[in-house]
Amino acid sequence: MTPAPGVRALFNPASIAMVGATDKSGWSVNTLANLDRHGFDGPVYLVNPRTETVHGRRAYRSLSDLPGPVDLAYVMVPTAVVLDVLEEGARLGIRNYVVLTAGFGETGPEGRELEGELADCCRANGLTVLGPNGNGFINAATSVTPYGLPIPPPLLSGSVGVVLQSGALASSVLAFSQARGIGLSLLTSMGNEAVVSVTDVIDHLVDDPATKVIALFLESVRRPGEFARAARRALEAGKPIVALKIGRSGLASRTAQAHTGALVGDDAVIDAAFGRLGVVRVRSLEDLIITAGLLASSGPLPGPRLGVVTPSGGASEIIADRAQDEGLELPPFAEETVARLTEIMPEFGSAANPLDVTGYVVVDRTLLGRALRIVAEDPGIDVVMLLSDLPRIEPPDPEPVFRLYETSTRLIGESPRPVVIVANVLTDVGAFARTLQERTGYPHVVGGIEHGMSAIGAAVRWSRARAQVSPRPVPVAPVVTGEGTAVTGTGTWAEHLAAAFLADHGVPVVPSELVPDEAAAVAAADGFGYPVVLKAAAEGLGHKSDVGGVRLGLTSAEDVRRAYREIRAAAGGIGALVQPQRHGGVELLVGIVRDPNWGLVLAVGLGGVWVEVLKDSALRLLPVGAAEVREALGELRGAGLLQGARGTEPADLDAVAETVARVCALADGLGDDLESLEINPLLVRGSRIEALDALITWRT
Amino acid sequence: MTPAPGVRALFNPASIAMVGATDKSGWSVNTLANLDRHGFDGPVYLVNPRTETVHGRRAYRSLSDLPGPVDLAYVMVPTAVVLDVLEEGARLGIRNYVVLTAGFGETGPEGRELEGELADCCRANGLTVLGPNGNGFINAATSVTPYGLPIPPPLLSGSVGVVLQSGALASSVLAFSQARGIGLSLLTSMGNEAVVSVTDVIDHLVDDPATKVIALFLESVRRPGEFARAARRALEAGKPIVALKIGRSGLASRTAQAHTGALVGDDAVIDAAFGRLGVVRVRSLEDLIITAGLLASSGPLPGPRLGVVTPSGGASEIIADRAQDEGLELPPFAEETVARLTEIMPEFGSAANPLDVTGYVVVDRTLLGRALRIVAEDPGIDVVMLLSDLPRIEPPDPEPVFRLYETSTRLIGESPRPVVIVANVLTDVGAFARTLQERTGYPHVVGGIEHGMSAIGAAVRWSRARAQVSPRPVPVAPVVTGEGTAVTGTGTWAEHLAAAFLADHGVPVVPSELVPDEAAAVAAADGFGYPVVLKAAAEGLGHKSDVGGVRLGLTSAEDVRRAYREIRAAAGGIGALVQPQRHGGVELLVGIVRDPNWGLVLAVGLGGVWVEVLKDSALRLLPVGAAEVREALGELRGAGLLQGARGTEPADLDAVAETVARVCALADGLGDDLESLEINPLLVRGSRIEALDALITWRT
Repeated sequence: MTPAPGVRALFNPASIAMVGATDKSGWSVNTLANLDRHGFDGPVYLVNPRTETVHGRRAYRSLSDLPGPVDLAYVMVPTAVVLDVLEEGARLGIRNYVVLTAGFGETGPEGRELEGELADCCRANGLTVLGPNGNGFINAATSVTPYGLPIPPPLLSGSVGVVLQSGALASSVLAFSQARGIGLSLLTSMGNEAVVSVTDVIDHLVDDPATKVIALFLESVRRPGEFARAARRALEAGKPIVALKIGRSGLASRTAQAHTGALVGDDAVIDAAFGRLGVVRVRSLEDLIITAGLLASSGPLPGPRLGVVTPSGGASEIIADRAQDEGLELPPFAEETVARLTEIMPEFGSAANPLDVTGYVVVDRTLLGRALRIVAEDPGIDVVMLLSDLPRIEPPDPEPVFRLYETSTRLIGESPRPVVIVANVLTDVGAFARTLQERTGYPHVVGGIEHGMSAIGAAVRWSRARAQVSPRPVPVAPVVTGEGTAVTGTGTWAEHLAAAFLADHGVPVVPSELVPDEAAAVAAADGFGYPVVLKAAAEGLGHKSDVGGVRLGLTSAEDVRRAYREIRAAAGGIGALVQPQRHGGVELLVGIVRDPNWGLVLAVGLGGVWVEVLKDSALRLLPVGAAEVREALGELRGAGLLQGARGTEPADLDAVAETVARVCALADGLGDDLESLEINPLLVRGSRIEALDALITWRT
Repeated sequence: MTPAPGVRALFNPASIAMVGATDKSGWSVNTLANLDRHGFDGPVYLVNPRTETVHGRRAYRSLSDLPGPVDLAYVMVPTAVVLDVLEEGARLGIRNYVVLTAGFGETGPEGRELEGELADCCRANGLTVLGPNGNGFINAATSVTPYGLPIPPPLLSGSVGVVLQSGALASSVLAFSQARGIGLSLLTSMGNEAVVSVTDVIDHLVDDPATKVIALFLESVRRPGEFARAARRALEAGKPIVALKIGRSGLASRTAQAHTGALVGDDAVIDAAFGRLGVVRVRSLEDLIITAGLLASSGPLPGPRLGVVTPSGGASEIIADRAQDEGLELPPFAEETVARLTEIMPEFGSAANPLDVTGYVVVDRTLLGRALRIVAEDPGIDVVMLLSDLPRIEPPDPEPVFRLYETSTRLIGESPRPVVIVANVLTDVGAFARTLQERTGYPHVVGGIEHGMSAIGAAVRWSRARAQVSPRPVPVAPVVTGEGTAVTGTGTWAEHLAAAFLADHGVPVVPSELVPDEAAAVAAADGFGYPVVLKAAAEGLGHKSDVGGVRLGLTSAEDVRRAYREIRAAAGGIGALVQPQRHGGVELLVGIVRDPNWGLVLAVGLGGVWVEVLKDSALRLLPVGAAEVREALGELRGAGLLQGARGTEPADLDAVAETVARVCALADGLGDDLESLEINPLLVRGSRIEALDALITWRT
């Protein structure tokens, strides 16, 4: 699906009317100044019913009075008359609107009703509206800037498209992009998204040839399904999405009967969803723009192995520390590289990675460039990182500086591997540096080691996600019962139902016998051999152990009889389950829970204290295959236990992953009625894998 | 101890000689340009034996030929003649030197020898030398700038003193400070520290009235004892030290027989040492300067409860996320505050903390200030955080802007609580903003929410450390045996010796009997009651279980006999230890190990997988009291287990802390021969605390 054609037209009007323009409003002043100053070359009509002159220009009484056609109306009238303006415009054939006016859904129930009417009006008339309660947009690629806050010059045009669920922060993002010398294609301040949504704008940017990277500031993902579809389109188109999603500190509001509920917080699900979609999540506005700027200038980075060239030992060690944080590697240089570097280095230098060519660059300004050329040819690296600051002030004679940067530009251009240039610290790219880059073609310089290493790490991760975009996950056939209809249930399926269901569908489950009385319990125990476990079996019984419904380590028939009586007394129910007692191995929790926004989510973790005290778990959106499960297991802090730490038998990780993936496929096939499915624990002893307990909860 | 008087004189010369000045050297050009441009008003003599004119000025053949006295010689001559220059200078009574020349200790054994000669020469003649292999210093407070790299104007004088173990990064720090509008008192590029050390400069800055905050870039802490003493002086003087210490990614090189060794990595010890000394550790150059700048402008912050005033909902949520990261609180406003805010807020706003006064600030520019005044009077907050950007460009008519900032300055000045102003994003403070601040007295603006929240968190932590500076830790009397001499040992004291020693000194230890044969083993087991544990007892035996030296859960005399035979066969030794078998409770590891730099370090952690797989431990330098141990226990990821998670009995944390503190005091009293002392596990069941195993390793 491509975006509605209206969105493209919205951002590319040839004529604009400012409805509600007035000398008294800062927004009105700013919007007109922006259109004038940043090169909009179509007519701008001012509409005000009460006066003939606004901002020193002729004002018209209404849209109907305008002398020419209007492609976009920028609406700043009082809340009560916004709908009248849209209806008038609709009659006149005006299709596109920015509604700056506030007082809609953000204010409460009445406002939400009004916003609903606005949306209905748009649907009925085929109108495209950005807002309400939004500052508009800045189309830097085509110099169309109907935007209510000041846009200080110069407006840098480039290939980063920015979409913000915030008004005030748009100005900060604009200022920061400018300070970093990062040009934008389009910036939109979304407002309430009554009509045009973040997803619509993403879809537009995926198709927009001026845009290479999409940067998002998100308060919430309002329509996850649509967002996911747009994000996949972006990944397939090779356009990275970088997102700052706030609300990390919000408490998880989800409750679920299973343990899994506590693990699947809203924010953790966002991480899992973004991971699945190849959306790069960042932690700050600075990282948002710096990462987008790097991806726009470098494109995908082929791998995590950096060859680093610096003029400073101190900086080299900062880079080494940060590389470790970001999962980047600094492999030793090849022998030939070392030999070639040793030839050109001052005698007190050392040809290691990161390479410190030393302060001798003050004497020989070509040293850094020559070292770069050698490092770029090292066979063991994926990316060259060059640490180099742009000049902050214009020298009296800039010509030698221009020549130096021309030489560097040529050397960088000749590199067989991508070269990422990073400054030491995050300071503005000044006017002289911008001129220098324009004149010599010197590439983008990433703002500082701290944010630069985050950006390189993110770019490598995105490039990896991009490479994995196909094959797509295999669609899973729904699970069917013998009758050919999908399984559903109601309430909670306690162990005796859930385990049997899992076993029927190929999940290894500990042998178990449901017994109705003491004698049958003893017979079952004799059959399994001692020790055995007895558990209550009752409809809707979730946490059996909380109500005294579990007896472990029963070593005799007498033990079994007593346990049976105690369990029935404590938990009631229809009987008891008898199982052989297992020991040793590693216990996993495998939980699948429905997130209201993103659907079924898998949480895997080590059982017991690991999930209960440490919340040590890894999440994935369904569907997941075995490979993804293996990756998730590797993310656990206690992963070492599965690999045989502390003398445990190393787990057959392939077999574990296959089992978990099978459980996921089963859950996926259970349809919309499934609320959660939890195996806790899944016991792993080498390649012997068994569910020891299970619980399924239905939505009804 | 105060610094040598020479250091103060070094940084405040009235006359300077540049020895080795030459037109061919960038360093020479830069140094003279810096002295000229940044207002040094004393004579600068150029010394060059080969030419009569350098940099267009008269050059002298040698120091002996100079026409006036010299307070500081800036030495750039070839390595081979540096010593000759110092000796000549010494004869002429020149006491202070910067040695830029490289080729000393940084190059290898020969260079180290030469550097030793240089240091000897200085000691013999009472010379103060900064370097060698350092770029010099910038005394911005007094406009003395003998510094070999360019110092772009304007050089901002202020109250942050910067000390760097790096040459090239000094320029980055300088540029970043300038970009942030943060003035420096002194900046020193230390070089090899042959004579003047980082500690000497810290000592000087503690006494320097121009300096309020000390910022350090450290590759290594070369003399920890001296550093610790200087850091304590700074804390007592109320001058925060902020430090970027690199080398986080270095592998811990320590090996120790005890498990503790793996927990006490070099970098973790630095964290513990800095924590003890109130040194604020940061992760980036940006955080270094931004944190120092905040502390220089705000002084101590009284507590972690922020009242936040912003014009943006999006920013409010970023702040909430970051506050959680930094351990800062955003308490709800008091009822009266809410009532007063509601009166002034636009109807669609909400009077919550963080306060978003909404985009209505575009209409009413006084709104932010009025909200600030109300929030500042809320009784439940410690610090007001105001989110506000400085203007980036000069408006055509700046007067209204000046008036607005004058009003804000007055409001901020009237606040009963500290007001920290933070910009949305990290961009340069431009020339107009600097003028604005100079003219209106508007306070320092912290660079961006991301780094700003880190800085506020750090400032709150420093303020807390400062408040705790007294009472000082109680000195611990050495442990003495009955004979009155300090206990020492050699090699490894295995459990039978170590546990007995601990028990003798008041540490609760599980009952234990050392038995020489099977019969005695059975008698001991009968005495304790079954089940019991048997352990090998052999001199120098560390990890008993690795050699089959431990048998658990022995339930009969027969079990005990067999276990005794097996243990003696497997581990040899002098007999076996018999102990009652304990069960339940939580196991702690309590380890004390000697760090070669910082002395004895305590590591506490939860036993078993927690330390072996998760490395979940907290470190403290000795001496530590019970309060500090409690704090350390609270930092464990598994701290919940001690508080009764998963149905365990809640531990008596006071009793645990007392016991651990007693072990620490004991270790502290054991003198310099102690290498490590480990209790693993220390079993905690409510208030019952028992060491189940112990090991002491001596250095000889």
